[in-house]
Amino acid sequence: MQTPYYLIDKSLLLPNLEKIAWLRQASGVKCLLALKCFATWSVFDFMSEYMDGSTSSSLYEVRLGHEKFSGETHAYSVAYADHEIEQVLQCSDKIIFNSIGQLARFANVSRGHIRGLRVNPGVSTSDFDLADPARPFSRLGEHAPAAIDAVADQISGLMFHNNCENDSFERFDEMLTLIEDRFGAVIHKMDWVSLGGGIHFTGEGYPLERLAARLKSFAETFDIQVYLEPGEAAISGAATLEVTVLDTMHNGKNLAIVDSSIEAHMLDLLIYREPAKIAPNTGNEEWMICGKSCLAGDIFGEFRFDAPLRAGDRLSFQDAAGYTMVKKNWFNGVKMPSIAIRELDGTTRMVRDFDYSDFAAALS
Amino acid sequence: MQTPYYLIDKSLLLPNLEKIAWLRQASGVKCLLALKCFATWSVFDFMSEYMDGSTSSSLYEVRLGHEKFSGETHAYSVAYADHEIEQVLQCSDKIIFNSIGQLARFANVSRGHIRGLRVNPGVSTSDFDLADPARPFSRLGEHAPAAIDAVADQISGLMFHNNCENDSFERFDEMLTLIEDRFGAVIHKMDWVSLGGGIHFTGEGYPLERLAARLKSFAETFDIQVYLEPGEAAISGAATLEVTVLDTMHNGKNLAIVDSSIEAHMLDLLIYREPAKIAPNTGNEEWMICGKSCLAGDIFGEFRFDAPLRAGDRLSFQDAAGYTMVKKNWFNGVKMPSIAIRELDGTTRMVRDFDYSDFAAALS
Repeated sequence: MQTPYYLIDKSLLLPNLEKIAWLRQASGVKCLLALKCFATWSVFDFMSEYMDGSTSSSLYEVRLGHEKFSGETHAYSVAYADHEIEQVLQCSDKIIFNSIGQLARFANVSRGHIRGLRVNPGVSTSDFDLADPARPFSRLGEHAPAAIDAVADQISGLMFHNNCENDSFERFDEMLTLIEDRFGAVIHKMDWVSLGGGIHFTGEGYPLERLAARLKSFAETFDIQVYLEPGEAAISGAATLEVTVLDTMHNGKNLAIVDSSIEAHMLDLLIYREPAKIAPNTGNEEWMICGKSCLAGDIFGEFRFDAPLRAGDRLSFQDAAGYTMVKKNWFNGVKMPSIAIRELDGTTRMVRDFDYSDFAAALS
Repeated sequence: MQTPYYLIDKSLLLPNLEKIAWLRQASGVKCLLALKCFATWSVFDFMSEYMDGSTSSSLYEVRLGHEKFSGETHAYSVAYADHEIEQVLQCSDKIIFNSIGQLARFANVSRGHIRGLRVNPGVSTSDFDLADPARPFSRLGEHAPAAIDAVADQISGLMFHNNCENDSFERFDEMLTLIEDRFGAVIHKMDWVSLGGGIHFTGEGYPLERLAARLKSFAETFDIQVYLEPGEAAISGAATLEVTVLDTMHNGKNLAIVDSSIEAHMLDLLIYREPAKIAPNTGNEEWMICGKSCLAGDIFGEFRFDAPLRAGDRLSFQDAAGYTMVKKNWFNGVKMPSIAIRELDGTTRMVRDFDYSDFAAALS
């Protein structure tokens, strides 16, 4: 198969999904895949065997979840347009509004639908201000318990999404306690609460049993159905980006240029200024791996190899499932990576290739 | 027309194009549109009346230039793959290799084609390390005059691209002198030299006549055809991103959420942490304009208005032509802006709309 391509490996998805299934069983929570992180629908049938459904951040995502991911479909968006709302309601089992303003705007049209409201507890875990929902002047959800209480009769649930790549159970626990303390009275009036995504509970060594117990006691205390919305936790480590070295140079360091680009194919590496991952990353040869776009800073990172790299060598960037395919773009007209799936029996099939006609049609 | 949409206004393109045409006439330089910045081919016929052709940074871009932009077509890429080179040669009048390694790799197949080499003069203008081609360990072009001289018989031209949003003629002049001093001997052996893009010569108050004289004397001194590759300079100020306010909130500041997203539709605002532009940006009301993606930092900026913003208000982000449409993506499934063109007679037509099927087809 010609590089570049994303390779989704079902056998690497499976351990995440089995942990999700275990957590659902042990705690009673329902788990919905967050499509904003991963929306490659060819594996939705497989994933939906282990999850309760999907959640969304726009009309198109909720429609995709409705059409392709069996189970429950939650609708959320920072803001819906008037012309979107009918279809959002048609495609969703629940709709979660980001603000009391949006709830009011769509009060009539959404009457009879299960409705919720996003609450911003003012605390979060994020190493990046950019991704911190509790940052000053945040637009993400309502803050004031009294204001939320005043519309409690119009909704049956709340959504808190304040974890971000949080691999500390203690920190999760502590923040949930703050939520209970601050919003407990209104939670008591609800039938369901979503605690959002960003809890890295499928990671190595995460105390899953403690998480299950904590979620169960939260649900029992308030007599609610609890939801989680895993994104990264569901697909962590389950895909690679497969590339080929096209050229090598030496300019103070060993440089290898590959047939991909961080800006076009793994955008978060650029936005968050983080390196890609290569395994095993050992050996005496140190090389800077660069993208082929015109951007001077299009650099995957510096990695170690056993032997000098040469044009034609194949490399795999690890952990390339989340927030990659959903953000890929045609910067520089660099060939967009195909998408391939490795089945549990080891066979690999390409499910989508992109070519010049896709590039030309992306513009006009 | 339903928002969001990019609106390209030919009457705002025209002043840039007329300056380009003047510069060509006065200096003898040839000007090629850099498609990496702007590749909305519906206006290529119009632009090509004022320019000599197009240049590219990948196979797909060179093919687009070849098919849609009349005149000369230059091929450049940081690295070509073996399977791309035949088509790149078919679509181009000249090919510029990024390295001596690539020149050697494709020496046979490109024999008979007009060939050039990218040279990195080790100086640049860039406020951003990310976009600085002269940054340490840069992979962009060859550095050593002796190494370049050793392959001079295989090429007839050189490309220097070391300006980046450079609005200072003095700085341009100074760097060109450095290039002449350092690479003069090999330039004397060439038939043509491209000085790349990034020279902001269509800006208000730029000393165009001095630029023309400098380029002319450079061409005469070395007896070469000089090329420029304007991107931003060609389309600066020529498009807006038209959006609608969907919701307003107050959380320490006045917040308005619009039906767009910097990450999805004006990506450079996020990468370079710069605010969008709104005109006239006056009045007593101060509002933070936010995108509708889930990203906490999806913020267009803070702007002034005469009256409080309300859902339904229309806003225009200025200067939205360069590096926007070519980088747009489906993050969060946010509706991709349509592309519309305002003709010189004032009529506006939509040339591309995107819908759910485009979103679903971007994945698989």
